[in-house]
Amino acid sequence: MSGTVYLVGAGPGDPDLMTVRGMRLLRRAEVVVYDRLVSPELLAEAPEDAELIYAGKEPGSHSCPQEEIHDLLIHHALEGKVVVRLKGGDPFLFGRGAEEVLACSEAGISCEVVPGVTSALSVPALAGIPVTHRGIAASFMVVTGHCDGRDRVDWQAAARVDTLVILMGHARLGEIAERLVQNGRAPSTPAAAISRGSLPGERIVTAPLEEIAERAAGLPSPVLVVVGEVVALTRRGSRTSAEEAGTVCSADLRRSAPDPSPYP
Amino acid sequence: MSGTVYLVGAGPGDPDLMTVRGMRLLRRAEVVVYDRLVSPELLAEAPEDAELIYAGKEPGSHSCPQEEIHDLLIHHALEGKVVVRLKGGDPFLFGRGAEEVLACSEAGISCEVVPGVTSALSVPALAGIPVTHRGIAASFMVVTGHCDGRDRVDWQAAARVDTLVILMGHARLGEIAERLVQNGRAPSTPAAAISRGSLPGERIVTAPLEEIAERAAGLPSPVLVVVGEVVALTRRGSRTSAEEAGTVCSADLRRSAPDPSPYP
Repeated sequence: MSGTVYLVGAGPGDPDLMTVRGMRLLRRAEVVVYDRLVSPELLAEAPEDAELIYAGKEPGSHSCPQEEIHDLLIHHALEGKVVVRLKGGDPFLFGRGAEEVLACSEAGISCEVVPGVTSALSVPALAGIPVTHRGIAASFMVVTGHCDGRDRVDWQAAARVDTLVILMGHARLGEIAERLVQNGRAPSTPAAAISRGSLPGERIVTAPLEEIAERAAGLPSPVLVVVGEVVALTRRGSRTSAEEAGTVCSADLRRSAPDPSPYP
Repeated sequence: MSGTVYLVGAGPGDPDLMTVRGMRLLRRAEVVVYDRLVSPELLAEAPEDAELIYAGKEPGSHSCPQEEIHDLLIHHALEGKVVVRLKGGDPFLFGRGAEEVLACSEAGISCEVVPGVTSALSVPALAGIPVTHRGIAASFMVVTGHCDGRDRVDWQAAARVDTLVILMGHARLGEIAERLVQNGRAPSTPAAAISRGSLPGERIVTAPLEEIAERAAGLPSPVLVVVGEVVALTRRGSRTSAEEAGTVCSADLRRSAPDPSPYP
């Protein structure tokens, strides 16, 4: 009797932002196959005797080809194990999750998909940036800055959408910003780069689109970039306050508390 | 000492797809202010003595204006209560969540945002449709079919993106499909309408874009629509099989099990 592969979205990093079902499965996993963007905080939720297998690709390298990941999942499932395949964010948004589902299915292995909280929405939200806002942004688009996807992105569409979220685009942010401007996006459009969103050490840099690549250089990965007028809505991460604070402000905007009382 | 408002994304409906943090907060809520798209299954997780307040708007009516919702949240928080504001999907994707955060903040009330699993990704995923897929879809856009947002949507961009997800567009699907075709999307583009995604009674209808409105008419709400080649990837919801089954097939594709053995 073969086991089951659970393809689980890990969310943006904070274990509290995993789904109830994802957490329940992780806590009874026998094998966990995880990606580069899955946080150590989350892996610590797996049982102590679970086998943890790293299957991440470093940016720019192909150390663990997709086929090897498929083989790993199938191999352990055939041994009858409860296999949790843990992917950062949501498994189906640039996560190649569908390929893994198809591979399992072709091998006769049961595969259940458990969606996750996508970083594309939650990382901006936790930084105080709503991707849509009445009167400001009525459409929302996500692209990846990775080579694979990037060359197929319709930059005309990306330049026209109200809010654009760029995942994995840190390394090529200058080039991406240039393409957006070439396709008609105003160079002054507010943009934010969010480093380690939802995790300890989260940092936000805001700048006009034409300057965001330069200002975001050197931020620890993962970095997510938001382009659009909604960026101006963030309170602590606003352009003005960020500039006053020296362009980089540490942020924990999940708690949008009122101004602290002058009396402690 | 005033209470706190927790603005919590409820996910697509299945309580298991709420975040760990969202569930923990809901289970200790004193007041729950919820929307039309929040499922009864999820509300059942609130404490028995919690006050449940419905603040949903029926489509086309304005029975509970946004300002009244703000007043409700602030009123109960000022009484020192733990207020959970539960919104279907993710609070910041067409959820007007940012307006509620700002209103609380202006009233001096602490407000914490807990992102949720967005229906825009998870409903297609659970129906076997990945919104991105290597070689097929490298960009993903979400629009709302509601009047408010619809008139501001850039239909040229919407027509060009690989995968388009339309939330709350059931009533105006014919008009939306027409706009997409007018802006260059092929009338034969695969489309899927998913009714009650993630919930008991989930149903999927697939058809070419030019026919989807007619084929989806009469589906129980909420209905989410996906337009793009990725729709053809779904196994059970594929166009051919749906047609064979009489255009509407009930679906529980979360479990992509191998073909059942001929021996029970």
